[in-house]
Amino acid sequence: MRNGKIIINFCPTGMVPTKDMTPFVPVSPQEIIEQTHEAYEIGITIAHLHARQDDGIPTYKKNIYRDIFEGVRKHCPDLIICGSTSGRNFPEFEKRSEVIELKPDMCSLTLSSLNFVKQASVNAPDMVQRLAEKMKDYGVTTELECFDLGMINYGKYLIKKGLIEGPFYWNLLFGNIAGFQASFQQIGTALAEIPETHYIGLAGLAADQLTVNSAAIGMGYGVRVGLEDNIWWDENRSRHSTNIELVKRVHSLIEIHGKKCYSPKEFGKLGFRNEAN
Amino acid sequence: MRNGKIIINFCPTGMVPTKDMTPFVPVSPQEIIEQTHEAYEIGITIAHLHARQDDGIPTYKKNIYRDIFEGVRKHCPDLIICGSTSGRNFPEFEKRSEVIELKPDMCSLTLSSLNFVKQASVNAPDMVQRLAEKMKDYGVTTELECFDLGMINYGKYLIKKGLIEGPFYWNLLFGNIAGFQASFQQIGTALAEIPETHYIGLAGLAADQLTVNSAAIGMGYGVRVGLEDNIWWDENRSRHSTNIELVKRVHSLIEIHGKKCYSPKEFGKLGFRNEAN
Repeated sequence: MRNGKIIINFCPTGMVPTKDMTPFVPVSPQEIIEQTHEAYEIGITIAHLHARQDDGIPTYKKNIYRDIFEGVRKHCPDLIICGSTSGRNFPEFEKRSEVIELKPDMCSLTLSSLNFVKQASVNAPDMVQRLAEKMKDYGVTTELECFDLGMINYGKYLIKKGLIEGPFYWNLLFGNIAGFQASFQQIGTALAEIPETHYIGLAGLAADQLTVNSAAIGMGYGVRVGLEDNIWWDENRSRHSTNIELVKRVHSLIEIHGKKCYSPKEFGKLGFRNEAN
Repeated sequence: MRNGKIIINFCPTGMVPTKDMTPFVPVSPQEIIEQTHEAYEIGITIAHLHARQDDGIPTYKKNIYRDIFEGVRKHCPDLIICGSTSGRNFPEFEKRSEVIELKPDMCSLTLSSLNFVKQASVNAPDMVQRLAEKMKDYGVTTELECFDLGMINYGKYLIKKGLIEGPFYWNLLFGNIAGFQASFQQIGTALAEIPETHYIGLAGLAADQLTVNSAAIGMGYGVRVGLEDNIWWDENRSRHSTNIELVKRVHSLIEIHGKKCYSPKEFGKLGFRNEAN
């Protein structure tokens, strides 16, 4: 759905960045809440959040997610909150799906198994379907996460099967070494597979983040931006970026195009708010 | 590389088809040898072979592969023989890579993790790289197997890294539920990523086999054909096919286009024969 309004999906933390890699990545609930609040004041639509233990290691634990979500809701009452169900470090269904029980507005669903640069991320068909079902049971909208064309095909299959119901939001991530790449042809081929009525955010990994964000804004698609996908300010890696700088740069691009960021309130009214909450 | 000659990659068995699914699938070494021999007499370039135990279950065992390869070589002395390193049922490197020690001309390498319709197929980056290295050590050409765009990207990365050396043969398989699909746009996008000097075979799963074979022959690319990818004669699944019928149909298409099948001898001379054997 392209209507001149840009969805900004803020991803401040992710699974990978550590304080050793960049001092700017927020890992404690307090840091995540503060940076999300600051980004919210500038203007974001969705916050895609990952939880970490005290030592910075990713965790699935509901109590930590609860602290984060409650803190974010306090400061950003209408922000669309999305929890991660990534199973890269904890493959069991019960663990991966704990966050769904908190009934955030959305949860992410990676639609197939894939490789990242150093490890496999296994999301077997049965696991993907069970996660989708649990999201549906808890009134949580599925963030359809795709790293390649086949994941889009599988997402459409789950929609056809009725396991995922609208409204639909796709997050397409370009530039993973074993995924689709940030070229015009590959992005165009991916987008051609998604119905016009669905909402779409485009993400690029590392230096592709700016490239993809910029192209997406120009073309009227949503963006995903934050240190989860890219910890650097520029292609030459001259310095580390902060989440807030990245969000501000996206706003500069949106302004140049005479467009607006989707407010969380507007986006929530499209059906992305979890009314069960 | 398109020069009016069509590579026919014959895949009679695979991991999935059983005698319960179709009486025509060859599973014993004798059956595989006989059907490969018959296909060779009609005209094929490569035989992509999987081994099975006595009970029809897939196996990695070298002694069974040896029986198959020796029998095939006896009847088809110049045929390019390709062994499978699929790890769907036996994930350990030692098992998956046993077949490489027999020094066939080629071995297949699936370039990333992926999902099939009912299960994940895990090929972590480290596993993929170790398999590629062992093939190189044994003078075996890598069959670059891709089910999606990201696998092509990863294959190019391994080539750049020097882990895979030429000549290059890509096998692109379209129509897996979590892979790229057999549309003009997706096939075109995939082909655009592969250098002009590389050799390419195109495969389609189930009813897509005929579609993709036919389009490939028209456009001058190689094909992969056999019961591994498709056990039916037609889209309506009116009856089971035999391997030989499928090969004959490919020859009918090649003839209509006034083209020729690459003979194993010609193809071997391009560097695809394992001289260490």
